[in-house]
Amino acid sequence: MSAVTSTRIVLASRPRGEPTADNFRTETVELPELSDGQVLLRTIYLSLDPYMRGRMSAAESYADPVEVGDVMVGGTVSQVTESRNPRIAAGSYVVGYTGWQTHAVADGDAVRVLDPSRAPLSTAVGVLGMPGFTAYSGLLRIGRPQAGETVAVAAASGPVGSAVGQIARIHGARAVGIAGGPDKCAYVRDELGFDAAIDHRAPDFADQLRAAAPDGIDVYFENVGGPVTAAVLPLLNPYARIPVCGLVSQYNAATTPEGPDRLPAFMGLVLTKSLTVRGFIQSEFVADMYADFERDASRWIAEGRLKYREDVVHGLDNAPSAFLGMLHGKNFGKLVVRVGPEE
Amino acid sequence: MSAVTSTRIVLASRPRGEPTADNFRTETVELPELSDGQVLLRTIYLSLDPYMRGRMSAAESYADPVEVGDVMVGGTVSQVTESRNPRIAAGSYVVGYTGWQTHAVADGDAVRVLDPSRAPLSTAVGVLGMPGFTAYSGLLRIGRPQAGETVAVAAASGPVGSAVGQIARIHGARAVGIAGGPDKCAYVRDELGFDAAIDHRAPDFADQLRAAAPDGIDVYFENVGGPVTAAVLPLLNPYARIPVCGLVSQYNAATTPEGPDRLPAFMGLVLTKSLTVRGFIQSEFVADMYADFERDASRWIAEGRLKYREDVVHGLDNAPSAFLGMLHGKNFGKLVVRVGPEE
Repeated sequence: MSAVTSTRIVLASRPRGEPTADNFRTETVELPELSDGQVLLRTIYLSLDPYMRGRMSAAESYADPVEVGDVMVGGTVSQVTESRNPRIAAGSYVVGYTGWQTHAVADGDAVRVLDPSRAPLSTAVGVLGMPGFTAYSGLLRIGRPQAGETVAVAAASGPVGSAVGQIARIHGARAVGIAGGPDKCAYVRDELGFDAAIDHRAPDFADQLRAAAPDGIDVYFENVGGPVTAAVLPLLNPYARIPVCGLVSQYNAATTPEGPDRLPAFMGLVLTKSLTVRGFIQSEFVADMYADFERDASRWIAEGRLKYREDVVHGLDNAPSAFLGMLHGKNFGKLVVRVGPEE
Repeated sequence: MSAVTSTRIVLASRPRGEPTADNFRTETVELPELSDGQVLLRTIYLSLDPYMRGRMSAAESYADPVEVGDVMVGGTVSQVTESRNPRIAAGSYVVGYTGWQTHAVADGDAVRVLDPSRAPLSTAVGVLGMPGFTAYSGLLRIGRPQAGETVAVAAASGPVGSAVGQIARIHGARAVGIAGGPDKCAYVRDELGFDAAIDHRAPDFADQLRAAAPDGIDVYFENVGGPVTAAVLPLLNPYARIPVCGLVSQYNAATTPEGPDRLPAFMGLVLTKSLTVRGFIQSEFVADMYADFERDASRWIAEGRLKYREDVVHGLDNAPSAFLGMLHGKNFGKLVVRVGPEE
């Protein structure tokens, strides 16, 4: 059999501050022959997520950075075109982390076989995948919303925020979403059913947020940082919980921001309000909660209680520009790249 | 019976920044007649604790501030000189929160009767009282030290810090204490048995701390803030826990400190290290843990595994100067004022 080639996007250089298209480079490589246990994959959907910005930098993080010259990381849905793994049939669909490329060789143990009849394939990297599980695990394990409490979340039209608010409501809490622009806010309120949706671009954003949370905020699911967080902090109730899953507003900061130094006041608030602030990566909870998540999320989707929206970009070539736009909130819904046809 | 008078120290004015003796005033008042259920108390020991600095300010905190003109709050050990409460006999000893005064009228429900044969009376506001329980509950409920982990705590010769380190060692963890000056460090290491004691006044403090925690820090029991915290943060391990029980280094700050703004980097650390930061007041855990604490702490003291040191000041008149000195670490051990004789 002749060698298979893969077109892939690699990290050409590390960004300093805002990344640009120049930090990426497209290459075509020849894939190695399969070893026993491996599968050859054709990428259908590539997930684009904010955490990838962190992996472009050499700074210490929860995961190793992408090395310059290496293919960009990313969750993918793929079809198996050749298999040397007895557990995985050629033609089946799998979800994995094969990155920004059209084809890949993967160990069978590193992918999970999907049932294509259960849900649209793309949801395996969205509402039924890592973003959905991030919302589910962080909200339920750390946020622990109680009936009648108020849960606030930013990027509320995105894959994590939209699930956070809807799952909060399923648990009897009031959901306040924060999003950028009137279209996203209307979607969050009218389609997703949040109790309120506030536009963080509004000049009176902080006042609107206060009005939308008349009983204060008990859970703030942190995925942005920056001015949104600053507006939330004064509204936190005693014993409020802050699961910290992302800080997209500050990922591009190249220098330490100017003062005043807000850390002492923040720690004072943690003390006087008995706050819980807890960073997490969803992988921490996979062993314990993933089966529950799949069962609950599938049922909620079937019942129409967990809605989702996807923003599909066509063609791997468009991944860099779509990714850069996402860092500015230009996507509307879960951003996925359709790299190839489903069949 | 002729009316009983009480000499007491009231808040004369709110401090702006550093408090001074002028913020206090001594008064003598006539106490009201006892109502049914009440007891008349003669103060023996008054506890002086850093939290009182917060109560002198009008700023929002976990407890209402002391009003200007009101008696300063504080834990006390007293003898009952007259009782109209069938549960409490005249002559018995009680612990309560009757504040900076020589005598007080209290509801019987607001005090707890002590067994004077069990331990020295003063320990009821120290190692067997609120400070000891703060250490016990915050360390075990939030810090959750595991055998082989490293626990760091500042003010390590003080009533909370000394108990934190010793209880950490009882649970099999390595205890690193931070204290001010060679005498306190020698006490922490040689008398209390911490694995290491570091002088935060040393010019190479951060380097010494790093050397004393070669496997990083898993639990940082936060009671000071400021430069000590800044030196601890880079040493925290993934999943480290930070119970926040006090921030004495910043209680006197009158203005927001100058930049750079360290909050974004702190939140980044929370995220990338999956840290847990949790403010608490010991009262949150009383119902759940106080009985366990009394049992465990009494046994550990009897076994010589939980040592304590008291710094006793004589005379209520000296309470303000002793309190002001404590805010600069001038006490050595649990600071108590002996207001009157034990019998």
